[in-house]
Amino acid sequence: MRTESDSLGQINIPQTAYYGIHTQRALNNFPISSQTTHPELIRAFLEIKQAAAKTNATSGNLDRSIAKHIVSATKTLLSNPIDVSMFPISDIQGGAGTSTNMNVNEVIANVALEQTGRPLGDYDYINPNDHVNMAQSTNDTYPSAGKIALLRLLEPLLLELNELVDALGNKADVFSTTYKMGRTQLQDAVPTTLGNSFHAWLKPLRRDSIRIKAAREALYSLNLGGSAIGSGINVSYHYQVHIVPNLAGITKLPLIQSHDLFDATQNLDGLVALSGTLKTLAMSLSKIANDLRLLSSGPRSGLLEINLPAKQAGSSIMPGKVNPVIPEVVNQVAFEMFGFDATITAAAEAGQLELNAFEPIIFRSLFAGIEHLTTAMNTLRLNAIDGITSNKSRLAQDIDLSVSFATAMTPIIGYQEAAKLAKESIRTGKSLRQIAEKKACFTPDQLTHIFKIEDIVINARTPEHGLVLHPPKK
Amino acid sequence: MRTESDSLGQINIPQTAYYGIHTQRALNNFPISSQTTHPELIRAFLEIKQAAAKTNATSGNLDRSIAKHIVSATKTLLSNPIDVSMFPISDIQGGAGTSTNMNVNEVIANVALEQTGRPLGDYDYINPNDHVNMAQSTNDTYPSAGKIALLRLLEPLLLELNELVDALGNKADVFSTTYKMGRTQLQDAVPTTLGNSFHAWLKPLRRDSIRIKAAREALYSLNLGGSAIGSGINVSYHYQVHIVPNLAGITKLPLIQSHDLFDATQNLDGLVALSGTLKTLAMSLSKIANDLRLLSSGPRSGLLEINLPAKQAGSSIMPGKVNPVIPEVVNQVAFEMFGFDATITAAAEAGQLELNAFEPIIFRSLFAGIEHLTTAMNTLRLNAIDGITSNKSRLAQDIDLSVSFATAMTPIIGYQEAAKLAKESIRTGKSLRQIAEKKACFTPDQLTHIFKIEDIVINARTPEHGLVLHPPKK
Amino acid sequence: MRTESDSLGQINIPQTAYYGIHTQRALNNFPISSQTTHPELIRAFLEIKQAAAKTNATSGNLDRSIAKHIVSATKTLLSNPIDVSMFPISDIQGGAGTSTNMNVNEVIANVALEQTGRPLGDYDYINPNDHVNMAQSTNDTYPSAGKIALLRLLEPLLLELNELVDALGNKADVFSTTYKMGRTQLQDAVPTTLGNSFHAWLKPLRRDSIRIKAAREALYSLNLGGSAIGSGINVSYHYQVHIVPNLAGITKLPLIQSHDLFDATQNLDGLVALSGTLKTLAMSLSKIANDLRLLSSGPRSGLLEINLPAKQAGSSIMPGKVNPVIPEVVNQVAFEMFGFDATITAAAEAGQLELNAFEPIIFRSLFAGIEHLTTAMNTLRLNAIDGITSNKSRLAQDIDLSVSFATAMTPIIGYQEAAKLAKESIRTGKSLRQIAEKKACFTPDQLTHIFKIEDIVINARTPEHGLVLHPPKK
Amino acid sequence: MRTESDSLGQINIPQTAYYGIHTQRALNNFPISSQTTHPELIRAFLEIKQAAAKTNATSGNLDRSIAKHIVSATKTLLSNPIDVSMFPISDIQGGAGTSTNMNVNEVIANVALEQTGRPLGDYDYINPNDHVNMAQSTNDTYPSAGKIALLRLLEPLLLELNELVDALGNKADVFSTTYKMGRTQLQDAVPTTLGNSFHAWLKPLRRDSIRIKAAREALYSLNLGGSAIGSGINVSYHYQVHIVPNLAGITKLPLIQSHDLFDATQNLDGLVALSGTLKTLAMSLSKIANDLRLLSSGPRSGLLEINLPAKQAGSSIMPGKVNPVIPEVVNQVAFEMFGFDATITAAAEAGQLELNAFEPIIFRSLFAGIEHLTTAMNTLRLNAIDGITSNKSRLAQDIDLSVSFATAMTPIIGYQEAAKLAKESIRTGKSLRQIAEKKACFTPDQLTHIFKIEDIVINARTPEHGLVLHPPKK
Repeated sequence: MRTESDSLGQINIPQTAYYGIHTQRALNNFPISSQTTHPELIRAFLEIKQAAAKTNATSGNLDRSIAKHIVSATKTLLSNPIDVSMFPISDIQGGAGTSTNMNVNEVIANVALEQTGRPLGDYDYINPNDHVNMAQSTNDTYPSAGKIALLRLLEPLLLELNELVDALGNKADVFSTTYKMGRTQLQDAVPTTLGNSFHAWLKPLRRDSIRIKAAREALYSLNLGGSAIGSGINVSYHYQVHIVPNLAGITKLPLIQSHDLFDATQNLDGLVALSGTLKTLAMSLSKIANDLRLLSSGPRSGLLEINLPAKQAGSSIMPGKVNPVIPEVVNQVAFEMFGFDATITAAAEAGQLELNAFEPIIFRSLFAGIEHLTTAMNTLRLNAIDGITSNKSRLAQDIDLSVSFATAMTPIIGYQEAAKLAKESIRTGKSLRQIAEKKACFTPDQLTHIFKIEDIVINARTPEHGLVLHPPKK
Repeated sequence: MRTESDSLGQINIPQTAYYGIHTQRALNNFPISSQTTHPELIRAFLEIKQAAAKTNATSGNLDRSIAKHIVSATKTLLSNPIDVSMFPISDIQGGAGTSTNMNVNEVIANVALEQTGRPLGDYDYINPNDHVNMAQSTNDTYPSAGKIALLRLLEPLLLELNELVDALGNKADVFSTTYKMGRTQLQDAVPTTLGNSFHAWLKPLRRDSIRIKAAREALYSLNLGGSAIGSGINVSYHYQVHIVPNLAGITKLPLIQSHDLFDATQNLDGLVALSGTLKTLAMSLSKIANDLRLLSSGPRSGLLEINLPAKQAGSSIMPGKVNPVIPEVVNQVAFEMFGFDATITAAAEAGQLELNAFEPIIFRSLFAGIEHLTTAMNTLRLNAIDGITSNKSRLAQDIDLSVSFATAMTPIIGYQEAAKLAKESIRTGKSLRQIAEKKACFTPDQLTHIFKIEDIVINARTPEHGLVLHPPKK
Repeated sequence: MRTESDSLGQINIPQTAYYGIHTQRALNNFPISSQTTHPELIRAFLEIKQAAAKTNATSGNLDRSIAKHIVSATKTLLSNPIDVSMFPISDIQGGAGTSTNMNVNEVIANVALEQTGRPLGDYDYINPNDHVNMAQSTNDTYPSAGKIALLRLLEPLLLELNELVDALGNKADVFSTTYKMGRTQLQDAVPTTLGNSFHAWLKPLRRDSIRIKAAREALYSLNLGGSAIGSGINVSYHYQVHIVPNLAGITKLPLIQSHDLFDATQNLDGLVALSGTLKTLAMSLSKIANDLRLLSSGPRSGLLEINLPAKQAGSSIMPGKVNPVIPEVVNQVAFEMFGFDATITAAAEAGQLELNAFEPIIFRSLFAGIEHLTTAMNTLRLNAIDGITSNKSRLAQDIDLSVSFATAMTPIIGYQEAAKLAKESIRTGKSLRQIAEKKACFTPDQLTHIFKIEDIVINARTPEHGLVLHPPKK
Repeated sequence: MRTESDSLGQINIPQTAYYGIHTQRALNNFPISSQTTHPELIRAFLEIKQAAAKTNATSGNLDRSIAKHIVSATKTLLSNPIDVSMFPISDIQGGAGTSTNMNVNEVIANVALEQTGRPLGDYDYINPNDHVNMAQSTNDTYPSAGKIALLRLLEPLLLELNELVDALGNKADVFSTTYKMGRTQLQDAVPTTLGNSFHAWLKPLRRDSIRIKAAREALYSLNLGGSAIGSGINVSYHYQVHIVPNLAGITKLPLIQSHDLFDATQNLDGLVALSGTLKTLAMSLSKIANDLRLLSSGPRSGLLEINLPAKQAGSSIMPGKVNPVIPEVVNQVAFEMFGFDATITAAAEAGQLELNAFEPIIFRSLFAGIEHLTTAMNTLRLNAIDGITSNKSRLAQDIDLSVSFATAMTPIIGYQEAAKLAKESIRTGKSLRQIAEKKACFTPDQLTHIFKIEDIVINARTPEHGLVLHPPKK
């Protein structure tokens, strides 16, 4: 054990621990969750510390050799997977992230000390606060690191979202002339195509992508240089001007500095807005999952319109059962995101005056939400969408028996008379065509028109009848 | 009483009722809430019906004299306040809005019949379904009317939001050199100005305005012409091409037709996204309200930094008590919006296949959310923000006694030593300056710099020290 | 106009208004919602004022003739429907309900003054604060009135809940031998009866009733006598001992006084817990509504297992369409309650120190949630459950074709082999019985057992095979 | 690698893996979260499998030697910490828990095979489905295991809750005569004691404990014996009668069998209700945390009424700053629980027909919620409550300067006159006593009474003046 001290007193630290007294206190204070801080947050923190050391060296405030050691330590740490034994604090923590910031400061100082051959804890030479944290505050580094981590995690999400849209689009082409009954309120309505269904699933996802990207803009804007509360106290002019460009260079992200550092330090509306777009994506995905589960219901007593690929035996007791396990996991990730959004909103609302102290739970929720949505879309695409087939015979049979053609009768005989024929069909079990042919109310041409499925469905799709929507593939 | 009939049978209607059988059935089916359909939704419906009649007349599908009567009836109805006895159905209703659509169809038919001297209910001449509803479905008219109503209700919201931003900006100017303590985690941090606080309150609102306007774009896009499920069944080419432009002319709104009418009929992601932006605004407002209540706490045992205008006696038993009643009502409207967003998300997620049957509760929640946020911002501005004054003596005293100047000492003596001085000040009750002056660690110049409030606060605000943020007004 | 004054100054009031200056100020301060305070809240307030006047008269603190006038005024007001022109303030209001308390104080004072032949506003004789509000504070009267209103509104809810359970139970009996396929994850599982489904719908409702009643207990406990913050300042010993018993007599409710008036004044955990039980009921109802919509889907391309009674024409364009409008409205009321619960939780969490200032939005949300759930259950029972019929032929056909009998094969041939037969049935379209009969793996007796639906379904229901659950009606 | 096969085909498994083909497929299907199934859920599953093997052996359906091997394998597994390499599936999974059930079945079979000297995967001898899963379904084992895990996790929560109540009670005793200003709406109201505050914090927690215990009752009731959908298919009478008592013996929990196994299989209202009580506890804790942060605000520009123990340096840049990090982490855990409750409600509502497929996300959310609330209460007690001290001088000063004594004047001079004196005090800065002494409106005795803090505060606490609440410690 070695002993470290701070303004509250002395404490023992494991001899070989790279972290120091602040981390040790945090371990005691926050035994909340076994989940530690997200590696992407640590990585972003290391990049910030590297940028800060370089900038402070250039400004002349930090001894160049100290700066060099700090930079070298961050490079070493960044070149390996994040070691959870170095960063062991629960990601749910009080103190607005101070513990994680100090954890990073301490680890960098000690790695740097070790690299210079000095003993761990020899902070007179390289100090976590005075050197590693120079010109910084948790107030500006923590939210900045969080934003960078979010930017990194959003990349795969947006890629997966795009891939999913493409996969749905491919299927829309495949099923562009696969006629099926459309339903409103789960009751048979009028015919459509399965291709139209896939288009209707992918369109919201496209808009979700646009909305998420728009919300992402807020993440590029950092409050570095604001130090405590955005005041820029203890920050040199040089640092304030150069820290963000330097960090942009290190991270290869188009980062900019907020115009109002007080605003940027205390307000988390950008994160709430981002969460709102992720929740909307979750809603879109859950609607798709619901529809897939419904349309694939069966195999005998369901709608049977589509087949999801069988991905695992569905039951431990019912042989041959195959369940829609992939859409089900998508639903659950969506419900989880609904909850994350509630958590994030409550935590953002509770922020007071010059700082929101509840950023840790907000970042944790956003990180998990983004990652789970990403993996859920991945498995939805690969293990469900790509393998969907249609039950053509069932689809055709449903249309044949449908009373929905009554809608096409209303311009000829009026709503009330058409309703009577529809009710007769349902009551007698005869097809609407059979009934209509016996009545004197339609000419043969009208009958042909009424029951021509292509005419009905195509109505919305050709210039002659309306809009060009999704021209069928030949 | 008069008798009307539909495919389900006959029913008695009050003799003078302008509504008909569908409305009467709905009154029986949905005794949910005493709140009836929002007048703006009815107005938008009337405009849609007018546009449809005109378009159907031009296409040749609707007898021109019938069309004229329908148009005339809608003009009469639009020229008066919406009469709740005509539109008496609960705004929470099943049927995806069919009852409200049919209610409007029936009232228009009967007003038109009356204007032509015919008895109410003489639907052979003017029919709610075959004539008033021609080429339409609840599937396309209800969401379109809802969107138009939302567009109308968002206007005053955006105006009030803008006014509130201006009001906060005015106060930011007034208080640009009113120094005060900044706080993080409710603990004294470093000095700032009250002007900075007002800037930090208004910035998120500006972003909220941008976000709401971006979300609003989705509302201009209507699925009229799609009739049932977006298929465009029973819709003429002429109608499909002209209905939205005609409606744009009548409503004077830049409405466009959705490119994919199936998508536009079943997906409510745009409304969820809009709700998300309103919830973010609610969060921003609640944070402001929280800060205002905190800073005005007192009058003796609180922070006392600002005074809210006294708007009413605060207590029925405690004389002289004045409470922050205006921010309190803002908080409550925000909490209500949090709930509306949950309701809207759940209802949108539950939509199945070609239609979301739960639009009524979604529109109801959005209407109420928008209206309450609008009035809350109005009273916040007029009855609170505009009259805020500062307690200069208290603010100055707080800064004098503050230990926050220790932060400015750290570049000179390091974090650990500065912490010791800060702790001594807190323990002894002596001011940090008194303590610092007795130590040998600072030169007189350093002392002057450390305790020069302008230098600290200005740090983030002038080119010499950092960013130009909010230059103090001379 | 008449002029009234308070500690903030003078203001004009409409000459004939029964309310006074505090109400007038509140109208200006809270232009939030057109919805005014709930009549049940006003009624409960009037009862409290009556009890207070009586108690203060007995204690000797209030002149007996003044008390008599106050009591008389409350009786007059209670004998009529609540007049919204007297109580015009938005139910969303700041001030923790002070405006509504003062509104009631003012109206009572003025009605009493009128009854004694004095002019409105002659508060020297009967004063809203000093006489009507004697020994009270908004801190104790507002939450107490709210709890009494909740108790009154919960009565019809619990009655409707009970009626709904009975209605479901009646149907469970009717369908006790109506065999049908059970489904897990929307995929065919093993047979059950429709009666089992109805039992499974009603059981949670029974538990909801128990949970709501348990949560209701907290409502009987009032903080009257606590006046400001629960301190009992300005409250006589006599009043403190007698106010709640007196009020119990007037309201005929078994009201008790909280043991800790500070606790009872600041903590709303009882209301959050109540909301949680209402949300659970909403969830139970929504699940039932979802199942009903699913099982009644069709008429041709759905599950078709049950028929909901046709309550209105389902579509303005699709003749003969009948939609599950009643379950749909139940779903929406449930989603609304989910939102109310979020609002209530956020508002309760935000309460600070000795009082929660956000009670108005909490009571508003609870009132609306309870009333809408009550009417939703009423229409669900009368317009849906009571009229449900089953499609016996479809149910029988589904079972005949089911591959679920493979589950009954596993004890004989093992899971893997049974799965092969099930897959063959699905692939070939042949019934499982046809396939099984051709294989040599079963004796005739085994075959009879495997495909005997009564044996499978009854398995869980007779002592020979398991539990007696719902014995079939002979 | 070894090869395993199921009805979907063959797949390669790592040679030494104890899990089998179903687990391998699940790893591919659900790459959602790095968090695997909760060890307590696995433990409960192992206990269920042990009970099932014993019961099946007694019933004669399972070969006694196979049963012995299965029991032995579960004992081996239960005697060690759960090995995540054996149970590697994401805890967010589709399939209603089938993957975890099969994972357990496979691991038990392979451990048993290994113990008998057979190769892994030799399922002809001991089969995961036919032997380990005999008479069971995921439908009954998964929710039963989940409930047992919840019961185990609730134990420490209820203990910590109790300890926290005691800790608050101890402080209430310590501060029973520490007078302080009470506040409503953050404005000074009338005096109280710090002891009253602590009592008001602990009372809701006591009720939370009662509510959670009441909700816990539902967890003891299991649907084992119901197998698929609650039908009891393939379950012997012996098993159905004995499985739950046998499991009660193994787990040492008072488990009972549900009366309606269909109900118990498909309805999760008990879990939603439990979540509601946990959310209410979270709300109670968050209110306490908010109050603690507020009352300890300072050190110079805050309320300064109490001191939280300093647990870590509060800032990386501001020396001497100590922040309320413990209450802050409590707030965040509360916000997280708000979100969990939303997730749980949405997932429960989405359950369809005979099974809720979304149990995995519900259990995950409940497990995390319970564990985080437990650790949060632990750190709140040990690191905050136990060390709280009061700032007596500040508290006394606040009372001296308070205008709240005006409330005690109203019985003598009326509300309006008292309000004037209060306003004069605030305007002039003079104490209310100074002002009152100069007026002729009070006798010396009255003055003494009005300003006697004990009389005011004690008002609610002695038989002479009202209720006995918390008698001050001598």
